[in-house]
Amino acid sequence: MSRNVYLDMISLEEAQDRLEARFGSRRIPPEKVSSAQAAGRVLAEPVFARASSPGYHASAMDGIAVLAEATYGASEGRPKTLIKGKTAFPVNTGHRLPDGCDAVIMIEAVNAVSDTEMVIESPAYPFQHVRKMGEDIVATELLFPTGHQLTPYCVGALVAAGMFEVAVYGAPRVLIIPTGSELVPLSDAKTAQPEPGRIFESNSHMLGAMVEKEGGIAVKNPIIRDEPEVIKARVREAAAEGFDAILLIGGSSAGSEDYARKVVTECGSLLFHGVTIMPGKPVLVGDVDEVPVFGMPGYPVSAIVAFEQCLSPLLASLSGRSFEPKATLAVTPSRKVASKLGVEEFLRVKLGQVGEAIVATPIAGGAGTLTSITEADGIIRIPTHVEGLSAGTEVPCELLRPASAIGRTLVAVGSHDNTLDLISDEIRRRSGKVRLSSSHVGSMGGIMALKRRVCHLAGIHLLDPTDGSYNLSYVDKYLPGRSLTLVNLVTRQQGLMVAKGNPKGITGIECLTRDGVSFVNRQAGSGTRILLDYRLKALGIDDKSIDGYTRDEYTHMSVAVAVLSGTADAGLGIHAAARALDLDFIPVVTEQYDLLIDNEFAGTPMVEEFLATIRSQRFKERVLALGGYSTETTGEVVATF
Amino acid sequence: MSRNVYLDMISLEEAQDRLEARFGSRRIPPEKVSSAQAAGRVLAEPVFARASSPGYHASAMDGIAVLAEATYGASEGRPKTLIKGKTAFPVNTGHRLPDGCDAVIMIEAVNAVSDTEMVIESPAYPFQHVRKMGEDIVATELLFPTGHQLTPYCVGALVAAGMFEVAVYGAPRVLIIPTGSELVPLSDAKTAQPEPGRIFESNSHMLGAMVEKEGGIAVKNPIIRDEPEVIKARVREAAAEGFDAILLIGGSSAGSEDYARKVVTECGSLLFHGVTIMPGKPVLVGDVDEVPVFGMPGYPVSAIVAFEQCLSPLLASLSGRSFEPKATLAVTPSRKVASKLGVEEFLRVKLGQVGEAIVATPIAGGAGTLTSITEADGIIRIPTHVEGLSAGTEVPCELLRPASAIGRTLVAVGSHDNTLDLISDEIRRRSGKVRLSSSHVGSMGGIMALKRRVCHLAGIHLLDPTDGSYNLSYVDKYLPGRSLTLVNLVTRQQGLMVAKGNPKGITGIECLTRDGVSFVNRQAGSGTRILLDYRLKALGIDDKSIDGYTRDEYTHMSVAVAVLSGTADAGLGIHAAARALDLDFIPVVTEQYDLLIDNEFAGTPMVEEFLATIRSQRFKERVLALGGYSTETTGEVVATF
Repeated sequence: MSRNVYLDMISLEEAQDRLEARFGSRRIPPEKVSSAQAAGRVLAEPVFARASSPGYHASAMDGIAVLAEATYGASEGRPKTLIKGKTAFPVNTGHRLPDGCDAVIMIEAVNAVSDTEMVIESPAYPFQHVRKMGEDIVATELLFPTGHQLTPYCVGALVAAGMFEVAVYGAPRVLIIPTGSELVPLSDAKTAQPEPGRIFESNSHMLGAMVEKEGGIAVKNPIIRDEPEVIKARVREAAAEGFDAILLIGGSSAGSEDYARKVVTECGSLLFHGVTIMPGKPVLVGDVDEVPVFGMPGYPVSAIVAFEQCLSPLLASLSGRSFEPKATLAVTPSRKVASKLGVEEFLRVKLGQVGEAIVATPIAGGAGTLTSITEADGIIRIPTHVEGLSAGTEVPCELLRPASAIGRTLVAVGSHDNTLDLISDEIRRRSGKVRLSSSHVGSMGGIMALKRRVCHLAGIHLLDPTDGSYNLSYVDKYLPGRSLTLVNLVTRQQGLMVAKGNPKGITGIECLTRDGVSFVNRQAGSGTRILLDYRLKALGIDDKSIDGYTRDEYTHMSVAVAVLSGTADAGLGIHAAARALDLDFIPVVTEQYDLLIDNEFAGTPMVEEFLATIRSQRFKERVLALGGYSTETTGEVVATF
Repeated sequence: MSRNVYLDMISLEEAQDRLEARFGSRRIPPEKVSSAQAAGRVLAEPVFARASSPGYHASAMDGIAVLAEATYGASEGRPKTLIKGKTAFPVNTGHRLPDGCDAVIMIEAVNAVSDTEMVIESPAYPFQHVRKMGEDIVATELLFPTGHQLTPYCVGALVAAGMFEVAVYGAPRVLIIPTGSELVPLSDAKTAQPEPGRIFESNSHMLGAMVEKEGGIAVKNPIIRDEPEVIKARVREAAAEGFDAILLIGGSSAGSEDYARKVVTECGSLLFHGVTIMPGKPVLVGDVDEVPVFGMPGYPVSAIVAFEQCLSPLLASLSGRSFEPKATLAVTPSRKVASKLGVEEFLRVKLGQVGEAIVATPIAGGAGTLTSITEADGIIRIPTHVEGLSAGTEVPCELLRPASAIGRTLVAVGSHDNTLDLISDEIRRRSGKVRLSSSHVGSMGGIMALKRRVCHLAGIHLLDPTDGSYNLSYVDKYLPGRSLTLVNLVTRQQGLMVAKGNPKGITGIECLTRDGVSFVNRQAGSGTRILLDYRLKALGIDDKSIDGYTRDEYTHMSVAVAVLSGTADAGLGIHAAARALDLDFIPVVTEQYDLLIDNEFAGTPMVEEFLATIRSQRFKERVLALGGYSTETTGEVVATF
């Protein structure tokens, strides 16, 4: 195996400096565009007004234009009469002042006593209610400097200033080349799921959308197999075709088929390979015939971070814009987070306002987990010299959504249930304002999140083995003295999920100890794990006798996937998960899944909308359609504390 | 004259509630788009994954795939040998695990002792370095809810989840109808300045760009003259053509030619006319055959406020998006601002970080002054029940530019000089990062702004009548004990600006007292006013003998405009202003225009870049090209305090 190594990993700052030094002064040649179409573009030249606005002294009111001098002396006791067409000229807002007039009296102050005579009871002063020529814009003055990004407002000012076209920087053209023999192009996608070992090529579409969001033009190259000579030929050709940047996706890390470095060094020169960021470490930048070539990591979150940190600033400077980092907000991590010294980590978090604090809940998942960023509301950057985050200590967070949206996010932390997805969808469909953000850490995790005041509510299904009751005794024990409301969400079936056709003939919990039967468990603290342990104890089964008892998954769906993919023969979970993946299901118990709501937030529009959603007929119908649920007590208050 | 009155002015909240109640649940019918093209669009249906990602257990490392069990027992003292193709299978990141394997050992931990034999010194645990099937996305799970606005990241997730197209809400089509007999369409613009009394129709282009920025499709109607029957016919027709909203520009206020209300009431029903906001008061909304019709004020800033407050939320809800208000920042007004009780005022301000505070400097100008918003960095909303702002008390400000850009803005307050425009342009051309924000309040205004610490620097040209020196004695007197640097910007000519050809034969200050000669003055506290008073005193002239002495303008250019438009025969000002408007110029004095910089900000990138700009050859050449300037000491330190 021939292998690359990151010989010279550099810091992000150094990487950005090298990019800026090599390409920062480059601009796309200007083009002329109609001012009406220029919003969003960046001026390549200063704009000086050609016309004044107003171009004449204009009435600022509806009323009569007069010569101020002719009105002097008018008072309540000694009104003055003006003659229409001689000393008084009716005007509307915006009309040019007739010659010889220098003031306007508003219509409310004029008493028309006949068709021609108008009486006033107070004088006008010169230029009263007059918009003077050039009051807004004076011809020859600078309207906007070079580098100004034109807004829709500017469009109005350009036209008013007699500037009907302007010179703006052109849009950068970026060629995106996906590489990799395992990739299936979208155009060849015949089924929803590609055959095992192959994947749909999605990065070029994602990065293309990112290029376009930055005002660039994305050109997508067909997929190239992992053959360095072919890739080299295409890169050389593309550099000659006048692209402003080339992205090679994949092949930038250190595997035996990672050719990006070889391609760049043999076609041009390498600026750097490897940056101390996570995700994004393998990013590589070179210069091929003066064209910047980026080796983008194949893991999507790595590619995103590398793009935003290295390519976005370049696209901004090529377009003449100043690069603006994301807006930040001070947030409080919901828990301690470890991170590696020497690496700047881009931690994806969900955000929500819980009481005074904006709470940040870290999202699990590595560089390959795209949903860790599609579900994120923000990114906490943990600097290289810091080992992690402490719970409860404010840190800055870069926002992926507007701060206002975060203020309207209901934060649920706790057990996983498929109906939470339905709530998330229904609540958005109903109001469009409230969002539900769920983190799945198990029922006890939800209880602890409420205890630490980092969520608005928790979804829990905690069986009390002493009396078979659900949830009540746990709230008493772990959240004494707190004001809470327990509302039922659903009653649901838990059971064993097994492969379609039940090839191992499993009939119940007692079968899990059989030779040749492997199990996949839920994490400690989850209601399902507590349920299993309760049943094992009742049946007198030692958990050590179950193959796979120590193998944890965090959601019903991941247990179902383990069974579907054949890495386990059985797992305990809800009917909805089995049905979603077309598994067989052996019912074990019916249990109660409740929502424990912190009364501090009772009556807020978020909680009200949430309750209205779960109490709606439409929601209940969607739940029943999933199978394995009963909604008889859905939305009812179970207890208040 | 037939006149409308705002019989039922309502609050903005009430106006928004009425709009929401009437049109808030309306959505543009969905359309299917390719996922690759879906960034920015809003989902009209929930998206459930069709494929899992990864779709198989995949290697998360470059290395060898193994069955974990087969590696148990390996240690440094007792290494294990694996056989390529039998117990060890080379894999790269992303590869499918071969059947029978459940773990990956990274290449760095493998010692290849021959072509076929590989030695390991520690065991693998099950699923070590494996991305399990469905780890990112599980088929059938909710990927994004209804109403989710898709980001470029989402594009990647959609493709990975086997969703190649999605149902998104269509874009609202908005018809924009400019009305007004004084309007000249852009297509007929033959000269930069329209003939007096007429104006270029710019509002439809500005509002069209605003519609498009909100994701709508703007259709521009030809200009319609102020004829109610014609306007009515077009509105009825357009409502039948399926537009989602109609904007009538102009004619919404209360003048004799303001037909919008008549049109709406006769074609449909009126929701409201008149909202207690300033600017924007005359806005009118009606319903014609179920289509919302907006009567937009003709003053551009009124139109902008009315659009953003009334139309933007509607366009958001039509497109299924939640409406996000502008981001806000706490700012400190630089001075007291009065406002009217009972009206919500939208005050346009310039922003800059001066020390710890974000200082907000109000911009002069009414609803007709478009530059009051193109130059603004933010808008302070003064609530209806508040009479104004106090200097120094923090208030929230809605941002028109990113907060990061505001942190890089150099705040200059003081006297006006045309070379400030050149600095503004040159500084952007050079670095693209630093912005110059200038407010023109006269030299003494600049000194006072420095005293109140609401600017970084002030442009001043203050003559000391006792010794003919410039600036020094004023700094000593008004800013004692402050650490400041005085840097020369230019030496410049001040003189009398008179009409081309000097028809009144003016030869100097002494001519200003002549009968039939009218003057336009600069405001008290400006260096030019001080200069004039000094000359008048020296010549023994009583200011009361000058016609127009009490008429103030705030900039050289507005004085020049007064002369150009014939409302004054002469004004004192700089050569550059006279030359810009092609006026004759009678030199009176050569004076020194300096920049007084607060040393608290010395050495910051902003001040350094500013000094480098004024010291550059290119800047000096541009200054000299204006005429009436000398740059011999430009950029030199005059004094330090």
